[in-house]
Amino acid sequence: MTIEVSKATSHLLDGVKVESSVREFKMILDEPEKTGGTNSAMHPVEALLCALGSCQSIITRGIAEKMGVEIEDLKIELEGKLDTRGFEGDTSIRPGLADIKSKFIIKSNESQEKINEMMEKVKEFCPVGDTVSNGTNLEVDYSIKK
Amino acid sequence: MTIEVSKATSHLLDGVKVESSVREFKMILDEPEKTGGTNSAMHPVEALLCALGSCQSIITRGIAEKMGVEIEDLKIELEGKLDTRGFEGDTSIRPGLADIKSKFIIKSNESQEKINEMMEKVKEFCPVGDTVSNGTNLEVDYSIKK
Repeated sequence: MTIEVSKATSHLLDGVKVESSVREFKMILDEPEKTGGTNSAMHPVEALLCALGSCQSIITRGIAEKMGVEIEDLKIELEGKLDTRGFEGDTSIRPGLADIKSKFIIKSNESQEKINEMMEKVKEFCPVGDTVSNGTNLEVDYSIKK
Repeated sequence: MTIEVSKATSHLLDGVKVESSVREFKMILDEPEKTGGTNSAMHPVEALLCALGSCQSIITRGIAEKMGVEIEDLKIELEGKLDTRGFEGDTSIRPGLADIKSKFIIKSNESQEKINEMMEKVKEFCPVGDTVSNGTNLEVDYSIKK
């Protein structure tokens, strides 16, 4: 099977704290106090950046290994910009991220040429990167329990 | 200021384990053994689903409060489908998620009409939902340290 199905369940707790479960793992997210939370954890947009940076890191590891490129260390600095008027109800502004910057700091003795070649593949084949930059079909439905 | 800048740093550890830092918070992600990890944490696509489900939960809380809709409980079941041939190098298949389904289970005594109205707003104004469904500009650059 080449189709991989990933599943998660999110459960809204007190206030805006949310516990998500995936297999045997949990992720708690929350909002800072200024947006109504208790600042007990990072917020969802920050978690999205972590998912992206992690996916970019993992795909880099895989591609580097296939290409025989030695990476001594890799850090990725991510930044996402969002105009809060969008999700607060101003329909002329999108509610989501206006843009994301992802800056790789690669410690390696390989040639610039080799790293360029690797990075072209990283940009092309990152699953979360592709999802976030090209978008995907998102189907939302709901049921009501009394 | 209405522009909110979110930042994260991802650091590739041993194998495909990645530690991401956001403010005072950390997120560790990893891959299952079959994809080269040690299964110490969920993987990035699962984390993306958690970010989405959490964002949908939080925006529901906010919109419900504004509308005076009482929600007793909210769970969201998310499912994302990915064809692994895409990130493994088959360029005829996208590397990212082919689609995401998000199913809200809402415990509430409100009318169906009121819940429908609320859900229209939830679908329209969720920041991570909008980012994932409509995509965003993703800029990747890199520097090499010897």
